[in-house]
Amino acid sequence: MARTQGSHSDITGPRIRKAALGLFARHGYAAVSMRQIAAEVGVQAGALYNYTPDKQSLLFHLMHEHMQELLSAYGELTQPENAFEALHQFVRFHIRFHLERPDEVFIAYMELRNLTPENFSEIEALRRKYEDALEAILRKGQGAALFDIADTKVATLAVIAMLNGVMTWYRAGGRLSLDEVEQNYWDMVRRSVSA
Amino acid sequence: MARTQGSHSDITGPRIRKAALGLFARHGYAAVSMRQIAAEVGVQAGALYNYTPDKQSLLFHLMHEHMQELLSAYGELTQPENAFEALHQFVRFHIRFHLERPDEVFIAYMELRNLTPENFSEIEALRRKYEDALEAILRKGQGAALFDIADTKVATLAVIAMLNGVMTWYRAGGRLSLDEVEQNYWDMVRRSVSA
Repeated sequence: MARTQGSHSDITGPRIRKAALGLFARHGYAAVSMRQIAAEVGVQAGALYNYTPDKQSLLFHLMHEHMQELLSAYGELTQPENAFEALHQFVRFHIRFHLERPDEVFIAYMELRNLTPENFSEIEALRRKYEDALEAILRKGQGAALFDIADTKVATLAVIAMLNGVMTWYRAGGRLSLDEVEQNYWDMVRRSVSA
Repeated sequence: MARTQGSHSDITGPRIRKAALGLFARHGYAAVSMRQIAAEVGVQAGALYNYTPDKQSLLFHLMHEHMQELLSAYGELTQPENAFEALHQFVRFHIRFHLERPDEVFIAYMELRNLTPENFSEIEALRRKYEDALEAILRKGQGAALFDIADTKVATLAVIAMLNGVMTWYRAGGRLSLDEVEQNYWDMVRRSVSA
């Protein structure tokens, strides 16, 4: 019986997360009830509580998973020695990773206000870890006199914000291919920090 | 009597908008009821309907007012002949105008999903008008061989996204003064488009 229970929640977990993600992105966290999430999955509301203690845990889990995936996907890349090449790789990675996850990105920014202070701190720490990876590249390029940056922290946030903008307008099959978009952004990012 | 009624709604209108703005920004449009807005203002829910037909109109009104204020404040500036100076003015204006209105900015981005298609089109047209003002500067500088930009539309969206990022981290009294922040962003924007 324990085994069946286990298998069942192995399948239900991802379905619950998927349903919650879609509903939170469409209506906002505060407007969605556990009952609605259960209805979307096709289970009784009570069954949800076997999987997650409450809606806050569900939101935290979604954001945490997103940040962990981001850090682990980026961590798998081989870092080029040259800071220009490392920055180029970051730009390409950031655009592609996020374009594939519009709902996760939307929630990661919009629903920070709905996390408890403890959960917020944990997500912020992961986000800072990702930012630190970019700042390390900028510092390295600065040290090698490839870059000329007044404040590497500000430049880090500026570059990430610029790249995040792609998510608000890019649509596959539009005027520009993804390669062209990447080239445009790389060109601007490169020049914005170059010595 | 008509006069008293008029004076009353002259006062109530801004209070309703202010209350709705704060509640939408804190909890999200979908999670806020007309009853909650009325309670925040200190009037009966019915009194709200003297002022606005429904919650959708209230949201649209808030976004519309924000965009109109943005366009009219920017329109009042004297445009420098030189494209570099015009771009510098745009950067300073954009950062200062938006930092003073965090709730409006948050809603302007987050609640687009909750506008009816007609209302969405109207807000989008105003937003495009603002983007067009920046693109005109970029085209002008491109024409004068001051700028070297592969795609002025992409560059417009990239610059605005970069500047919007300031809103997510800048706090008055923090490590950097507003002047320093502006200087950092101007330095990066300038180089990102320069020939």
